[in-house]
Amino acid sequence: MMKLATIFKSRGNVPGQLLKRSNLTQDVFCLHALMGCAGMSTVGQKTFTNDRIFAPYYVYKGKAAFSAEPIPPKFCKVDSGIRVKRQGFIMMSFSPSVGERKYDWQRKQMFALSPTEVGSLIALGPNGSCDFFHDPAMQTSNAGQVRKSLSIKPSPDGTGYFMSLSVTNNITKTNERFSVPVTSAEFAVMRTSFSFALPHIMGWDRYSSQPPVFKEENATKVGLRSMDSEWDR
Amino acid sequence: MMKLATIFKSRGNVPGQLLKRSNLTQDVFCLHALMGCAGMSTVGQKTFTNDRIFAPYYVYKGKAAFSAEPIPPKFCKVDSGIRVKRQGFIMMSFSPSVGERKYDWQRKQMFALSPTEVGSLIALGPNGSCDFFHDPAMQTSNAGQVRKSLSIKPSPDGTGYFMSLSVTNNITKTNERFSVPVTSAEFAVMRTSFSFALPHIMGWDRYSSQPPVFKEENATKVGLRSMDSEWDR
Amino acid sequence: MMKLATIFKSRGNVPGQLLKRSNLTQDVFCLHALMGCAGMSTVGQKTFTNDRIFAPYYVYKGKAAFSAEPIPPKFCKVDSGIRVKRQGFIMMSFSPSVGERKYDWQRKQMFALSPTEVGSLIALGPNGSCDFFHDPAMQTSNAGQVRKSLSIKPSPDGTGYFMSLSVTNNITKTNERFSVPVTSAEFAVMRTSFSFALPHIMGWDRYSSQPPVFKEENATKVGLRSMDSEWDR
Amino acid sequence: MMKLATIFKSRGNVPGQLLKRSNLTQDVFCLHALMGCAGMSTVGQKTFTNDRIFAPYYVYKGKAAFSAEPIPPKFCKVDSGIRVKRQGFIMMSFSPSVGERKYDWQRKQMFALSPTEVGSLIALGPNGSCDFFHDPAMQTSNAGQVRKSLSIKPSPDGTGYFMSLSVTNNITKTNERFSVPVTSAEFAVMRTSFSFALPHIMGWDRYSSQPPVFKEENATKVGLRSMDSEWDR
Repeated sequence: MMKLATIFKSRGNVPGQLLKRSNLTQDVFCLHALMGCAGMSTVGQKTFTNDRIFAPYYVYKGKAAFSAEPIPPKFCKVDSGIRVKRQGFIMMSFSPSVGERKYDWQRKQMFALSPTEVGSLIALGPNGSCDFFHDPAMQTSNAGQVRKSLSIKPSPDGTGYFMSLSVTNNITKTNERFSVPVTSAEFAVMRTSFSFALPHIMGWDRYSSQPPVFKEENATKVGLRSMDSEWDR
Repeated sequence: MMKLATIFKSRGNVPGQLLKRSNLTQDVFCLHALMGCAGMSTVGQKTFTNDRIFAPYYVYKGKAAFSAEPIPPKFCKVDSGIRVKRQGFIMMSFSPSVGERKYDWQRKQMFALSPTEVGSLIALGPNGSCDFFHDPAMQTSNAGQVRKSLSIKPSPDGTGYFMSLSVTNNITKTNERFSVPVTSAEFAVMRTSFSFALPHIMGWDRYSSQPPVFKEENATKVGLRSMDSEWDR
Repeated sequence: MMKLATIFKSRGNVPGQLLKRSNLTQDVFCLHALMGCAGMSTVGQKTFTNDRIFAPYYVYKGKAAFSAEPIPPKFCKVDSGIRVKRQGFIMMSFSPSVGERKYDWQRKQMFALSPTEVGSLIALGPNGSCDFFHDPAMQTSNAGQVRKSLSIKPSPDGTGYFMSLSVTNNITKTNERFSVPVTSAEFAVMRTSFSFALPHIMGWDRYSSQPPVFKEENATKVGLRSMDSEWDR
Repeated sequence: MMKLATIFKSRGNVPGQLLKRSNLTQDVFCLHALMGCAGMSTVGQKTFTNDRIFAPYYVYKGKAAFSAEPIPPKFCKVDSGIRVKRQGFIMMSFSPSVGERKYDWQRKQMFALSPTEVGSLIALGPNGSCDFFHDPAMQTSNAGQVRKSLSIKPSPDGTGYFMSLSVTNNITKTNERFSVPVTSAEFAVMRTSFSFALPHIMGWDRYSSQPPVFKEENATKVGLRSMDSEWDR
């Protein structure tokens, strides 16, 4: 344990160096890992960096604004590769207007769209609508205290949608509501960029970043999942 | 032969090192290779890694669940490049429910969607349906013993689809059937992610990962396939 | 500060060398940086290069031609990553015909489509139309002197669109107008390539070029934005 | 000149080594280059390789088969970057059947779909059709001797299309014709993969493979094309 910690620490001094996948990590499984996957440094030829990307798409309107931003999935190391441990999402953040072109982002409320909720949004027809309900304390003792709902409804004139977030907090006895009209052009940006982001938050873009796989005539490797599974039964 | 084996073995000790494409591999052709392409280490600037990606999309319902996951094509080395030797697919895996939110993945049955079957799925209209039939033992002496069929049908209320897998085994005299209702949101996720994955399982994403090609005024290289073929006739 | 300047200067002599992200850059914030982000050399494993890509899509017609080309967003360094500082756009450039298949690109007029304007274009139905208005001197003392408008209208026979750019200059008392008929095939190229480019000019393609993020069981890092924000409230 | 040739030759011995963009290449312009762009070795951080990708999509039917494969554009070096010198295309190759599941690829005829022709194909409605005409000897003294036409027509039962290639050679007095029925599933594969490939054959995927551009507060570089062009007039 001591040794591993030391390695990670020293790695911090050589960020540009490729750390080889060593025996230390071979037995780290998803569900049973004592140490988790913290500090893993290299996947394939890529090296870790803390450089996060911040590229939200903003829609500013009279009473409120929102931003949308994809958040990638989180992976963990498994026997013969890496596995999605928690799916990514598209984070929607709503803020109230506090003057002309001014928004109070300290009071923002967030809503994380899951892949299936993203699917619902991008499949929305011209007059379609959808509603999502989240409980941030789901499966804890505080379940039901805070309820969030995001609704997307067509605007009365048929030229766009209303995106509305409602947050009801039974503890503080507050109810916040944000509603932002979205033009069809803005919705087209969302539909296109969310469709682009969907495979990413599912982790499917990782399949493309791998080196090509070669067909082995006499494959004898143990531990690699067979690709021929359908035909093996 | 001995020497090649030695090289491959020693390569296992230096996974982070780029192995240069050597003369050893120059004459390895797709159809006639004695050794196949096992152990090829470098394509362009990329190096092999065993890190597979596991990022299935799961749909869990009352009686069964399924997952979908792209499996990349396999390549082999040819004279002036690399060629798809076996197309990739999207692997669908169905498992029966064995209690609330519990599924028996040991009893899973798989169905590998080919690129054209993926095309059929993503082109499905609101009331469209499709059926695919596979024989895992096709073109062997066991042909016809096991039959699999995957069907996608619109749900009666028009809000989604039913995905059903049936596996009939004439040897064990068993017939397993899984049926999973899919909402329009879940189907939108599948349509979008399958459309994303389709060029990948065809190998077309590899074209984008190559360095740009420069126009040579006086091209004299031998062995490169001419790009001007249409105009040469 | 002196030291930083020296580093940047010397870097100019070794363009191919990876410059490690050092502590020097840790405190460079977007809005308050004295030095700005000029000359930043490395993001993740990538190194700067001046090699710009020039790949405009051209539509040449009798009286005028236009080209379309994506221009990426500009980033700046922030506390824990990089942030889009100015959104990208798709640059439309129109030029008048000055003879058969000859166009005077010295007299070109440009119009930069924002992400939302791109969204408007790609969402255009068969008989839809849209108009965009730009003032190149907006928010300066010269506001209103030059007005540009780009309009996209369906052609009378329903087989395509007219793309027209009008530039009115009140100072030079000139009014230039370009109109280019676009076939449905050409518009399909624009719709498809603009849809492809949209996430890029928003900066969303950067999310995919990052290494996979691992789930840390005992995350203790300071300064990383929490991914669990929705659930923390 | 001698020196340059020597460098390129020696480069052949060190394929894994990054060759720095040197002053030698700074003045090589697209139209006036004496040497052309042959042998250019590095763009950004990528190094040349001869590994071409072969991943055609095949449709085999009773009387003929065809394959489709994207061919990337060709670039040349210009002052401050690289420019598309010749657009890419999707190469369609047709071959006659010479027995059950046998095709004579020696007798294949090719047809290169330009980006706009690809746009025409992917925009095709359920009952739409299109025809393309090529003259391989266009703008030479042999113009008109060989005429090729590719037509896509809906099948009578509305379930797919017919793709037909006709090649008329006035010199050899021959007329070859291939016709391949395409199911809606196969056409969906083509539509999806061609849409994916379109930005690639236009060269637009290169924009995404560049490092992020940073906003320079006090940009003083000479020779970089201004991104603010619209606002400068």
